[in-house]
Amino acid sequence: MSDSDTDTEQQAGRAGRAGRGRSGGGAASRRAVRSAGKATQLKFITRKIPYFETLNEEALEIIEENAEIILEEIGIEFRDDAEALQILKDNGCDVQGERVRFPRGLARQWCKHAPSQFTQHARNSERSVIIGGNNTVFAPVYGPPFVRDYDGGRRYATIEDFRNFVKLAYAMPALHHSGGTVCEPVDIPVNKRHLDMLYSHIRYSDKPYMGSVTAPERAEDSIAMSKLVFGDEFVENNTVMISLINANSPMTFDDTMLGALKVYARNMQACIITPFILSGAMAPVTPAGVMAQTLAEAMAGIAFAQMVRKGAPVVLGSFASSISMQSGAPTFGTPEPALVLYGMAQLARRLGLPFRSGGSLCGSKTPDAQAAYESANTIIPTALAGVNFTLHAAGWLEGGLISSYEKLVMDADQLGMMQRMLDGYDMTENGQAMSAIREVGPGSHFLGCAHTQANFETAFFRSTIADNNSFEQWESEGSKDAYQRASGLVKKILEEYVAPELDPAIDEAVLEFISNKKTSMPDAFT
Amino acid sequence: MSDSDTDTEQQAGRAGRAGRGRSGGGAASRRAVRSAGKATQLKFITRKIPYFETLNEEALEIIEENAEIILEEIGIEFRDDAEALQILKDNGCDVQGERVRFPRGLARQWCKHAPSQFTQHARNSERSVIIGGNNTVFAPVYGPPFVRDYDGGRRYATIEDFRNFVKLAYAMPALHHSGGTVCEPVDIPVNKRHLDMLYSHIRYSDKPYMGSVTAPERAEDSIAMSKLVFGDEFVENNTVMISLINANSPMTFDDTMLGALKVYARNMQACIITPFILSGAMAPVTPAGVMAQTLAEAMAGIAFAQMVRKGAPVVLGSFASSISMQSGAPTFGTPEPALVLYGMAQLARRLGLPFRSGGSLCGSKTPDAQAAYESANTIIPTALAGVNFTLHAAGWLEGGLISSYEKLVMDADQLGMMQRMLDGYDMTENGQAMSAIREVGPGSHFLGCAHTQANFETAFFRSTIADNNSFEQWESEGSKDAYQRASGLVKKILEEYVAPELDPAIDEAVLEFISNKKTSMPDAFT
Repeated sequence: MSDSDTDTEQQAGRAGRAGRGRSGGGAASRRAVRSAGKATQLKFITRKIPYFETLNEEALEIIEENAEIILEEIGIEFRDDAEALQILKDNGCDVQGERVRFPRGLARQWCKHAPSQFTQHARNSERSVIIGGNNTVFAPVYGPPFVRDYDGGRRYATIEDFRNFVKLAYAMPALHHSGGTVCEPVDIPVNKRHLDMLYSHIRYSDKPYMGSVTAPERAEDSIAMSKLVFGDEFVENNTVMISLINANSPMTFDDTMLGALKVYARNMQACIITPFILSGAMAPVTPAGVMAQTLAEAMAGIAFAQMVRKGAPVVLGSFASSISMQSGAPTFGTPEPALVLYGMAQLARRLGLPFRSGGSLCGSKTPDAQAAYESANTIIPTALAGVNFTLHAAGWLEGGLISSYEKLVMDADQLGMMQRMLDGYDMTENGQAMSAIREVGPGSHFLGCAHTQANFETAFFRSTIADNNSFEQWESEGSKDAYQRASGLVKKILEEYVAPELDPAIDEAVLEFISNKKTSMPDAFT
Repeated sequence: MSDSDTDTEQQAGRAGRAGRGRSGGGAASRRAVRSAGKATQLKFITRKIPYFETLNEEALEIIEENAEIILEEIGIEFRDDAEALQILKDNGCDVQGERVRFPRGLARQWCKHAPSQFTQHARNSERSVIIGGNNTVFAPVYGPPFVRDYDGGRRYATIEDFRNFVKLAYAMPALHHSGGTVCEPVDIPVNKRHLDMLYSHIRYSDKPYMGSVTAPERAEDSIAMSKLVFGDEFVENNTVMISLINANSPMTFDDTMLGALKVYARNMQACIITPFILSGAMAPVTPAGVMAQTLAEAMAGIAFAQMVRKGAPVVLGSFASSISMQSGAPTFGTPEPALVLYGMAQLARRLGLPFRSGGSLCGSKTPDAQAAYESANTIIPTALAGVNFTLHAAGWLEGGLISSYEKLVMDADQLGMMQRMLDGYDMTENGQAMSAIREVGPGSHFLGCAHTQANFETAFFRSTIADNNSFEQWESEGSKDAYQRASGLVKKILEEYVAPELDPAIDEAVLEFISNKKTSMPDAFT
């Protein structure tokens, strides 16, 4: 596994040239000194093993055909946005009231204008990511109103929690992205929250981040703040944000999401168009039904984004859980959503679009075995299917109601394993290890042989969470389970956290922007 | 998912005709009555989705070539068994002392005599399994000297524990097999243990079971007892046991294992030939090295079995873990063993042999998140790679030192999910669910639509362990984690356990055999 892939840096590392007089080289060497001894941040993943594909050609064609039928015959509603309806009508859709029907093949045709992959720049160019192709980017949990930690239990999230989650994500080598709403800071007024959230990503991390989507003007603020960080010209010509546009499934987009989508698309900033589906509620109970509907909704949103601005970077998203048909509660880590995930990845590749899905999803209330089984049942398919952008890759708990401190570091440990897995096999002479087999021969052991000595430092993935000591030693250390051990790790990481360098002039400009915005309007809490 | 596959029953269900005058039909109908309301036992898995294959053709050929080099140039030791050495010599091997070298291609040629799949019969013919092809059979944990449960903690296993694990495995719908040494009953003399263990499988389950391998005469006892159950002629003509023959890696077989192998092969009973490898100790640290050595050792053992009796049923086994290079402790659920598993499955298929690997392996001391992540990281590759026979599929804890009551039922819940996953997609008209999408349309919900109502009972896998209630309800029920909930489930299953029917004449004959054997020799505890 290489963390200094030169080609990748050439493609993804152009942000450093913009901004306000930072001397990239000097900063880079200071970073290198400071990070000595720390776990090395990993580049986004470029997979070296095949995709796992579960749908055959016939099934793929049936689902694509059904998506066309949904688009052509049933249609998609674009609500409370006259401009959107006009754009759709002008580009050949059949618009009746708010119901928009796409003539056969039209949406697919428009999807072809979207790039198959794009670079999202980070303010630290080494952290820029390529979204699409055979690359995978892991981002933390998005959206929970609550947090939980081992000592403090479950409580509403605050901006202090938000900063902590940004810091934790910054410290995790296999999180390639700082994410967006890592938790919902309910102590900040709703109409000003996005400013503090975005600032936290800018100030406490140097990984790429997401923009606000809760109102068009907040999307505009996100772009304005990013221009202060990256420079106006750089943002006009490059993608520095990715933002989450959920469809209101079934077959509906609302004005809030459409408003944010238009802002980002016009500014060439990336949007993830995700039908958010609890099967049985927002879509049929069957995987084939969920896939056809997801594909239709996502194609409609992506086609619309391309009508707003051809070439705007987009990601085809799929979020599908099953539900408990007794209580109606969403359930995660079950087989049906994994089948949807594998299939949707294939469908997105056939459209030539980057794909978002998966994560470390679970319904458990606490980071126990249920949480881990369910998360693994989602993140392994995420890795094997070839998801390009993975939200909720670490920290998600209780069906997305909670951002869990401990689960974030536990999941991130697993992400490191996924990254190693996708790196595949070393088939060099050293990897084949025939010298070791010849040296040792029958009945002896490999612990001391030359090949083992030369390779043992890097041969095996080393977990930060797993305890592999003897039972006696584990017992003498307090018989701690993974949750308890993770709690200790969280504290250590937050204690040792050092903020990445940020040009004071940029910091000042961003803080001034926030201050002006905040004083320009009264607080709103709904 | 069908649990009454008629073709399968025709292939696998011939055992009922043998035995001592049991009236199969009457027994079957009584069983049907008694099992009403219980979770339905599932048939072994016949997969409907593709294999996940990670090695390309070039890599496969390199590993196969390296295995041939090991067999031809380095050789395999067959220790303390003059008869084995003579058999190998008589069949074209170069034998120098105990070192046996296989001329290029010889071992592969002999492997072709082994069947690509075979039926292992259970005394209840509905429980017979097909091992090989695109089928997967899950069997419980094998070998731990300790047990652990929530209330009693960690302790040495007894025959009472052994019976309990047989009963639990019998009650788990997605365990298709009763296994072998589900724990090591240390309260029974070593030389008599196999008798009581085998009796437990025969008496407390009607699923297929494994034979003893700890001495050739115990393998003979296993066959004698099976003849009392199935009838002499049936056992002479059919496979009713599968047994675990481990290589002493690197590149060594010992007389104990060779002795048992010869007994089983001569009696056409199945052997799993498994190089047991902790990478870095018994093999090189690299996956490509582990695979070449595993392939060479397994081919040597399988070729030998075919030399003993052509056509004897065998399974190519691979057990590979990594180790902590600090403590030397084995580690599980890491990426490297999964890469070995995927690759070995491909190599076994190219040889046309049934494949054993995987399980729900973990290093954790307790059924916590570590245990679950690690187990999922093994059982998902097990399912996706197309493993045919999976030992340790449920109940394994602490690197195989412990059989865990709670983890057995937690893992078995996951096995149900794997089985559903491998059943793939329903692409019928009902599966496509276009009627539901048309009926509901944009902006409504699917909860009450006709399609949902018709399908909700079977649409989603229902976990027996996961809690998907609200936080408030979960809290009011004691904030129990998965381990605690599993403890309650274990107690309930053991309380409600009803033994499967067994002809009293068979029971008496088996008990008499055991009694005679036990009185024929003094107790031995080493």
